[in-house]
Amino acid sequence: MEALLIIVLIAGILSIIMALLFAKMVMKEDPGNEKMVEVSGYIEEGAKTFIKVQYKVLALFVGGLSILMLFLMNPGQLSVPHMIAYIIGAVGSMWAGWLGMIVGVRANTRAAQACTKGVKEGFDVSFFGGAVMGLAVVGVALIGVSIIYWVTLDAGVVLGFSFGASSVALFAKCGGGIYTKTADVGADLVGKAEYDLPEDDPRNPAAIADNVGDNVGDIAGMGSDLFDSYVASIVASMMLASAATIAAELLLTNQVLFIVLPVLLSGIGLFASLLGIFYIKKKTTEDPGKSLNAGTYMATIIFAGLAAIMIAICTALTASPVEQLLLWKCYGASIAGLFSGVLIGFIGDYFTNERYAPTRNMAESAQEGHAVVVLSGFAYGLMSVVPPALGIVVAMVIAFSLAGVFGVSMAAVGMLAIVGTIVANDAYGPICDNARGIAEQGDLGEDVIRTADKLDSAGNTAKAITKGFAIGAANLTVLALLYSFIEETGIVGAVIDLLNVKVLIGAFIGVVVPALFSALLVLAVQRNAAKMVIEIRRQFEENPKILTGEEAADFNKCIEIATKGSLRELIIPSIISIAIPLSIGIFFGALSLGAFLAGAILSGFVFAIFMSNSGGAWDNAKKFIEDGNLGGKGTETHKAAITGDTVGDPFKDTAGPSINTLLVVMSLTASIFLGLIMVFNGGAGLLIF
Amino acid sequence: MEALLIIVLIAGILSIIMALLFAKMVMKEDPGNEKMVEVSGYIEEGAKTFIKVQYKVLALFVGGLSILMLFLMNPGQLSVPHMIAYIIGAVGSMWAGWLGMIVGVRANTRAAQACTKGVKEGFDVSFFGGAVMGLAVVGVALIGVSIIYWVTLDAGVVLGFSFGASSVALFAKCGGGIYTKTADVGADLVGKAEYDLPEDDPRNPAAIADNVGDNVGDIAGMGSDLFDSYVASIVASMMLASAATIAAELLLTNQVLFIVLPVLLSGIGLFASLLGIFYIKKKTTEDPGKSLNAGTYMATIIFAGLAAIMIAICTALTASPVEQLLLWKCYGASIAGLFSGVLIGFIGDYFTNERYAPTRNMAESAQEGHAVVVLSGFAYGLMSVVPPALGIVVAMVIAFSLAGVFGVSMAAVGMLAIVGTIVANDAYGPICDNARGIAEQGDLGEDVIRTADKLDSAGNTAKAITKGFAIGAANLTVLALLYSFIEETGIVGAVIDLLNVKVLIGAFIGVVVPALFSALLVLAVQRNAAKMVIEIRRQFEENPKILTGEEAADFNKCIEIATKGSLRELIIPSIISIAIPLSIGIFFGALSLGAFLAGAILSGFVFAIFMSNSGGAWDNAKKFIEDGNLGGKGTETHKAAITGDTVGDPFKDTAGPSINTLLVVMSLTASIFLGLIMVFNGGAGLLIF
Repeated sequence: MEALLIIVLIAGILSIIMALLFAKMVMKEDPGNEKMVEVSGYIEEGAKTFIKVQYKVLALFVGGLSILMLFLMNPGQLSVPHMIAYIIGAVGSMWAGWLGMIVGVRANTRAAQACTKGVKEGFDVSFFGGAVMGLAVVGVALIGVSIIYWVTLDAGVVLGFSFGASSVALFAKCGGGIYTKTADVGADLVGKAEYDLPEDDPRNPAAIADNVGDNVGDIAGMGSDLFDSYVASIVASMMLASAATIAAELLLTNQVLFIVLPVLLSGIGLFASLLGIFYIKKKTTEDPGKSLNAGTYMATIIFAGLAAIMIAICTALTASPVEQLLLWKCYGASIAGLFSGVLIGFIGDYFTNERYAPTRNMAESAQEGHAVVVLSGFAYGLMSVVPPALGIVVAMVIAFSLAGVFGVSMAAVGMLAIVGTIVANDAYGPICDNARGIAEQGDLGEDVIRTADKLDSAGNTAKAITKGFAIGAANLTVLALLYSFIEETGIVGAVIDLLNVKVLIGAFIGVVVPALFSALLVLAVQRNAAKMVIEIRRQFEENPKILTGEEAADFNKCIEIATKGSLRELIIPSIISIAIPLSIGIFFGALSLGAFLAGAILSGFVFAIFMSNSGGAWDNAKKFIEDGNLGGKGTETHKAAITGDTVGDPFKDTAGPSINTLLVVMSLTASIFLGLIMVFNGGAGLLIF
Repeated sequence: MEALLIIVLIAGILSIIMALLFAKMVMKEDPGNEKMVEVSGYIEEGAKTFIKVQYKVLALFVGGLSILMLFLMNPGQLSVPHMIAYIIGAVGSMWAGWLGMIVGVRANTRAAQACTKGVKEGFDVSFFGGAVMGLAVVGVALIGVSIIYWVTLDAGVVLGFSFGASSVALFAKCGGGIYTKTADVGADLVGKAEYDLPEDDPRNPAAIADNVGDNVGDIAGMGSDLFDSYVASIVASMMLASAATIAAELLLTNQVLFIVLPVLLSGIGLFASLLGIFYIKKKTTEDPGKSLNAGTYMATIIFAGLAAIMIAICTALTASPVEQLLLWKCYGASIAGLFSGVLIGFIGDYFTNERYAPTRNMAESAQEGHAVVVLSGFAYGLMSVVPPALGIVVAMVIAFSLAGVFGVSMAAVGMLAIVGTIVANDAYGPICDNARGIAEQGDLGEDVIRTADKLDSAGNTAKAITKGFAIGAANLTVLALLYSFIEETGIVGAVIDLLNVKVLIGAFIGVVVPALFSALLVLAVQRNAAKMVIEIRRQFEENPKILTGEEAADFNKCIEIATKGSLRELIIPSIISIAIPLSIGIFFGALSLGAFLAGAILSGFVFAIFMSNSGGAWDNAKKFIEDGNLGGKGTETHKAAITGDTVGDPFKDTAGPSINTLLVVMSLTASIFLGLIMVFNGGAGLLIF
């Protein structure tokens, strides 16, 4: 049965090959004029500097945790395979992130140059640049999971791989998120608000740092975040299928088939993603936003078709009619998950797109001043949590009634199956954003900038959907991880009962953690942006020739502030995400830890959706006004809208999306260190009361 | 044993008598000059208009619900006593709110006049005005609870009384909260920001509506909110003590003693509150803020002493050593609750007082613009949730280890025991606030305004503590109600297990509801304030003589907008708070409903603390700047701080505190309509999967 994994392995290798081919294709494009190459070079250098420093810190973190895992994962024995898998997961994710980012930063100047030819040309370069990241993520994940399981036949070891991916995501997503907003907010506060410079103006000392931020935060960060969720969803399903209780409940005779099933479905998803990518390429029209979304829908439909064929083949591999039926039920669960992901994306679009009422109302409320647009975005953001929550609930009801908790994990797998397309669409955005900046800085003229703007705005449309997708998928994944944790603890007899005060305490602390985490990240951005503001002001004041364009600003100083600051600010959040679940487990026990995770998952969902959507809507409300509505640029209304956008920046690009990572890291920490937790009063915790 | 209730009944009557005496005392004071009497008359008229319309709507709501209760509380039989208790609870709360508010609006002009004599004189009038509300609330609650239990000997009927109080609180708190911020935000946005009028300027057409709002929102609303929590905490304990399972667990032989215990402790709390009030009166110095807080601490200590004496007496009433020990354990639990309430208050003060780092940092961040001060307040507000959550957790651990879930309910009773002092301190604030306005409008001169300002700022200091107290108390109360609900359902065997997907679904929806509720209230304020803005601008534009002070503005138009708007906006939130828990119970069953309540309680706690503290801190950051720091009034920094304050207004005075009420109403709805829910598949819910 495990031999089926060879198909997945081949698919993974194919994916990496395609990624490298796409990368080569992009590199062959014309990088544009000298100035553009120079700017692009600065961005590449800045991004590399950040990633290198980050990876050094990460090496320490991963090194430390791997030693912890080796000795404490199963106290009394050495967990060598788990440790190795952990390191492979971390290195794999780092490699995929590095590749995606390097291609991204090189694609931007080429995309800018291609924009001189037209929308379609610009789109192709940006999109293929982004697709490299999407395919690299899926390829590394599938190769890692299939080989590790094939070699060890132990889903628990694959869990180590997943934890490695998570550790990287924590740094890449949070660190990158802080970086990108430090630069963006700093650049806006001084450049735009005080000196009336346009976006991406080369005179702004933080302009390059801002561009670097797009790459490290939105490409490398987002990629590693989805890598993390993707692997975790597969592993959670494998763990559940491996659990004896689940096998008994589902009457499995052919357990391995169901352990392998999530990997197979994800492999099928890769093909669907690839076809989706080619569909987008073929269908590129004058409305690139539509093409991107059409590609997502196409991948969804193709997945539904291909997965049905695969399930039909699988039914031939078992003689048990119960299992044959169950295979189809798992199919149903995964499709329910996928469709609910698309639905959540749609809703995100509704709440953040200026074509619909909420963002329109927000833009209008900017006429009443700064405070009102903030309040309005806050309220709509909170409101936008309701429909996705119902979407998740419906997916859960369907999945659970089909195949119990295993069904829920299959829904997560289904939702993440087309992650290749999602990451590709997502990484497309920052490339266009950078291309626009380079076109501006390379003096390519208004027409080219307008073309780049069009591509950029398509990226924003796509992003609304991919972000909702990412959050929904992460949420279903951590729910599956929670189930897997509960099964693993063997506390199915001793249920997580809310009447138990330890359970309630766990849930209470769990609910608070995402709020604390968001607060720390927002403060981190605010603190760093303040330093950036001081630096930019200093440069303008000390050297008036920067503003006249006669002398270049000192970009490196700004890059340094963003780099150092974002890594320093990471220390507390990363400690929290490991230390709090461990402490809960050690002091209050495994039951309490389960409730802690549940509380964190639920409130994390609320905060993630709220922050992402309110931030996106403020951004688009501002753009709506900048397009000439409600008085247009320069008015008081516009200024109020900029306030909204600035508030939303760390919401949507730092805190909101980082919560996913937090949830996955905490869930995996619980599962990985369960052996350690069980040492304390047999998992009942040190505190007995 | 029930005869002990006669002490409580007498205490309650005494409380009402004291309230009426204080009211008389206040009325005897000099109401000031003609202009002041006129303005005060407008405020009184506006407040009465609002309350009358509100009570009419409330009569329909209570009437409808009482019919529902009569037929559906126990389907198949008529629940006459419960219905009567429900109506008594509603009417009692309405009466207390009415009395407190009328005295409040009449105290304001007298307080303003007293300020001409000095701080102490002004303080006395304001404080006794506020104490009327505090004593009325406690008196009505104690009389109601003790008589109803004495007559029926059924804690379930007292639950009806509590539900009546809750229904009123829902309208008074949410409606009053929307009203007050509609007027405040509207008045600030046009008057302060566009026309540079000072606060409370008589030329501002919304000035009177703003003053009315303080009375209906902060006096009547806050009073009914605490009335609601107070009664609910007592009832939850009575219900738990009545439950056979609890009685068996605690080895009770003398069950009635423990049913009566929470009522007795609350009665003792009344004496402690009264002594606290007299202590404040005696200790009034030149720093009234300190006096108020000293009174709170004094009441706490007196309660600890008096309650010990009462427990000692109670131990004489039982021969069982187990029960004697348990009585002392309950004492310990209630003291743990009370101290954690004080601690939460302290922390609220730390996070919102400009003497400490968070608010200072927020004020400084205003130098970087509107967006940064908003982000900073958002982050500190979220962070301020952590220590109170730990406070609640510690109280729960202590209370639970002393006396199980009954202990947790006793902690809630302990925390709310000194509610008389808390409400008195709280109602003091809006009276001073109004007094300041009337001093301004009555031309009493700068010195008097400064005196009133001093009193007002003491009110804000006290408010930070009382608000934290109110939220902490409400939270422990709803936890106790949750336990009582679980016991009531008799599903202790069928535990609320997170592995059960229905339970997880319930929790998921529960977590989202406080977010939705907050969003609806914030949007309500925003929508109404927008109408107010249009009306104020219209008046200024159509009649320029208003601005020169030659002609009076049309106050009534503004009052009408606030009144109508706030009641209209109440419709959806009030339906939600009843319909959602009922639907969850009917469709997903009682287990799911329990998890729903737990989810709502946990996320509600986060949102309530976050919104109250961020709002309070923004307010004080603005005041810190207005006191001449960081450049003082009129600077860009000040403008940014005003944006923060305006964002915080509906947070701290509408949405944040209304969440308490929401939680209590939902918890009581679940308990009251449990009989109905049990009809559907024996409480398993209509949806079987």
